[in-house]
Formats: sequence, structure tokens, C-alpha cells
Amino acid sequence: MTKLIQFLDEHQERKWGLWDGDKQAIPLEGDVFQYCGNLGGLGAGVTAVRVARLLPPVPVPPPNVFGIGLNYRQHAAETGAVPPENPLIFIKASTTVIGPGDPIVLPRSAPHEVDFEAELAIVIGKTARSVPASSVADYVLGYTCANDVTARDCQKRLDGQWARGKSFDTFCPLGPCLVSPDEFDPADADIIGIRNGRRMQKGHTSDMIFSSERLVSYLSEQFTLLPGTVICTGTPAGVGVARKPPVFLEPGDLVTVRVGGIGELANPVVADR
Amino acid sequence: MTKLIQFLDEHQERKWGLWDGDKQAIPLEGDVFQYCGNLGGLGAGVTAVRVARLLPPVPVPPPNVFGIGLNYRQHAAETGAVPPENPLIFIKASTTVIGPGDPIVLPRSAPHEVDFEAELAIVIGKTARSVPASSVADYVLGYTCANDVTARDCQKRLDGQWARGKSFDTFCPLGPCLVSPDEFDPADADIIGIRNGRRMQKGHTSDMIFSSERLVSYLSEQFTLLPGTVICTGTPAGVGVARKPPVFLEPGDLVTVRVGGIGELANPVVADR
Repeated sequence: MTKLIQFLDEHQERKWGLWDGDKQAIPLEGDVFQYCGNLGGLGAGVTAVRVARLLPPVPVPPPNVFGIGLNYRQHAAETGAVPPENPLIFIKASTTVIGPGDPIVLPRSAPHEVDFEAELAIVIGKTARSVPASSVADYVLGYTCANDVTARDCQKRLDGQWARGKSFDTFCPLGPCLVSPDEFDPADADIIGIRNGRRMQKGHTSDMIFSSERLVSYLSEQFTLLPGTVICTGTPAGVGVARKPPVFLEPGDLVTVRVGGIGELANPVVADR
Repeated sequence: MTKLIQFLDEHQERKWGLWDGDKQAIPLEGDVFQYCGNLGGLGAGVTAVRVARLLPPVPVPPPNVFGIGLNYRQHAAETGAVPPENPLIFIKASTTVIGPGDPIVLPRSAPHEVDFEAELAIVIGKTARSVPASSVADYVLGYTCANDVTARDCQKRLDGQWARGKSFDTFCPLGPCLVSPDEFDPADADIIGIRNGRRMQKGHTSDMIFSSERLVSYLSEQFTLLPGTVICTGTPAGVGVARKPPVFLEPGDLVTVRVGGIGELANPVVADR
């Protein structure tokens, strides 16, 4: 299984590489997007280096971060919403992206109703415009875990528009690695969200209303998707706001997103300084 | 008056420069953001070059494009909305940005209710986080004209969320130039929107509910604003959707945004190919 990461080596240099899933990676030369669709056989004869720190597996900031609302049947049901006829697109600011282990900061202007959303994310590898669903794999650099962190008070009561509540700094943890489309079936993966060791969300991508391929195709019919574009594909049931009583993130929490076949993304929660 | 542009010179090289308002500019060396707050006395002794084509006066794609909903009292009234208590933030995809003269393309998926919104835009020049309104001028590279083009059917009936309807490719014309905060008073400018020679919008920034300084300050309390971030500050009354009967853009139209003290941004409208 090929796992692609962005990381700091022991000289604090930023690199892309093929990850062994632990402390080593085979560094890759040049722009990572040249490898979209060409990951097989890479890195032969190259010496592995030590991974000092994992970075988010996208350029920072990425060109755009798209999210999809209400894309799991059970989650649409728990929020009382009617499932949408077409994918419901929203945008997170590009400044939300952080990597594995980086802290999620509860924003000073809205610290009380911050919620987790465990998700599968797609990272675009090649400029995509009006791509049919059957060709989507050619345009995907890889799949990763995402946490579509959301301040519910801003999203619902205060703004109505979701942009602010989903765009505070640190509200889009991504990682730990990208798995390429030839080695990952986005229609057959468990999505698990864990808070402080307790499983809060457990879904499966087969419960998606719009498949990953359909999402990329639909988005590419609307907009040009540049290399590095992130698509958060929606969250399964079990988010904090839908619980009775509601559960929100607090300083000291640890939130983990696990996607079967990809790995685990864990981020501590801290108060704003 | 210092007018900063991004342009192609006659060798098709992309440059930033100090514009004479017509066909010539004095080219600037290096990263444009180093000049934030330091535009005075620049370019002395440097020979002007010919401007072959004006580009949008921001890096493309910019890190984020923020918009503000319902920020003019008369526009809030014409849409029947209650003026918001805090700035209502939305996000346009970074892939929307085009320059002066570039065509606005009516998207294939929503070509029938595309509307213009003449606006004043702010371009951030220095990383801004929790900046008080009184210090905002230090963080602004300059002000420019924007057209916050919007597909009303997506914005209202179809999605509810504004992201898609405001994010089709070409939906954020910007330009022609940036005027720096020491030479432009964002509280005292006429904002005019013209379609095919007929004036459709005429407002004044003094009718803004939240001033430009207040907007930058508020946004910087929510998110980190990176250099190159664009803030579209809202549109005055007179948009097409609020007219009886409604007026929407059609192939062959020419839309012009004029901001007093900055200049004129004109874009033709074309059908998708």
C-alpha cells in the first residue's frame, strides 16, 4: 500500500515522501502533483529518511477547501434535514488546514459549541473541469482523513450561512497520509470519530447519498478544481450537536478520526490563548 | 495618487507596478507585499514599461475571498432582509478571480439568473490577526473594484448556502488597480454598477452598516487573514434580482463597476462554450 505524506525531515525541511506508516519515508523530488496517477514503482533505490513531523498532506494553504453537507443518510436523519437532491456545497477558508497532532483551537469568538465531524477527504491531483464520474480516479492524488470542525452556534443560530462556523483557524485537520485511488475504494471504508477514547461516530461510506466519484464529478461541473483542492465528503451520524444532551469539544479533549484503509488522525483541543 | 497594478508587459511577463492610469507602469521588484504601507517614493529613477494587459491586482488564486452579505442599508431593505447584527460572512472560491476585461462566463449548470453586485474590495497586505479597527490601514495593501457575481437560483431556491452560487469560475472580477489606504477614504466613495451603459446601482460607502475598517477588524478576530486575502465589502441597492421585473446577465452584456477614487472595472458576459 502506497502512503504519501508531507513531512518535516530531521533538518526541518519540508518534503513529500512515501511513508512506511511509522517513522520513515522515501523522499520524492519536485512537485508532488506530477505523481498523480503515477505512484507505482516510485522511490526504488532511494534511501529512506526519518520523519520528524507529519504535515497536512496538501499544499498549505490549498487553493480551495470544499465541504459537502448532509451526505450520509443517517446524519441527515439525526439533524432532521431532508436529504438534498444535489450535493450541498459549502466552503471552508483555506486557512483552516492543520496536520496530525496539531491543536484544534476553540476560537475566542465562539468557543462553546465546537463540534467534530469525522470524514473522508479527497485531494485533487490534476486540474479537473467537467470530469465524468467514471474518470474521477485519474484526477485524485489521494484520499485522507478529515475533521470538519464546526462551531454550531455560528453555523445555525447566529449566521445561517455556514462559512464562519466552519472556517476558524485549525478547523480542518487533515492526514496522516494520502492513499491513491488504485489502492483505496472510497465506497467501502469505515469512518469512525472518537472523543477521548469513546467512539462517537461510526459510519460506512456506502451510506453516502452521493459517492466520492459523483462528488468530484459534480464539483468539477460547477468549478475548476485545481491541484491541491480538498473535498470533505460529509460526516456520518453521531456528531456532538445531535446528542441528548449535546456534546461539544473542551480544552484537553483529544479527537480522533479513523478511516479504514487510510489510518488515524488525532488532534488535541486547546483554548485560545 | 499611487495606483498599484499587476500586469503583463510586452514580453508577456507578469509584473507588479505603479500605474499611470493608462498604458504605462513603473515595474516593482520582488514580492509586492513588502510594499504594504511603504508605497511612497517608490519607483524613483526606474523607467516605465508598456502595460500589455491588466491582470487582477491580487495573487491568483488568492488565499481566501471573503464576502459580506447585506452590508448596505438600502440593499438589505430591497431584499426584504433584516440588517445583521454582525457582519454576515460568506466565502467565494479562490478560483473565481478574473481581471479587467476578462469575460464573465454564465455557468452551464446555472446560466439563467446570474446577477451583478458592484462592490468595494479590500486586499490584505500583511498577515492580520485580531487587528483593532484603528490599526487596519497598516494591514491593507489597497482598495479596488469588485463584482461579486452571483447565480441567484443557486443562492436562494436551490442551495440555501451561498457558496456555489457565488463561486462559479469568473464570478469575481477585480481591478483595475489598488489604491493604498493613505490615498483613499473607504468611507467616502461612490459605488456604481452599470449594465450596457445603463446605471443599475448607485450607492455610497457611507451607507455601509459595517465600515471597511470594522470588517477587516471583525474578520481578523475570526480568522487569520493572509497577504492577498480579498474582502468584498457588500453591494448597494439596485441589483438585478430585486428589480421588477428582475434583470439578469445575458451573453453580450457588458458590466461595469465604478468606485470613486479607484477607477472602472468592465467585463463582458459570455455563454459557456
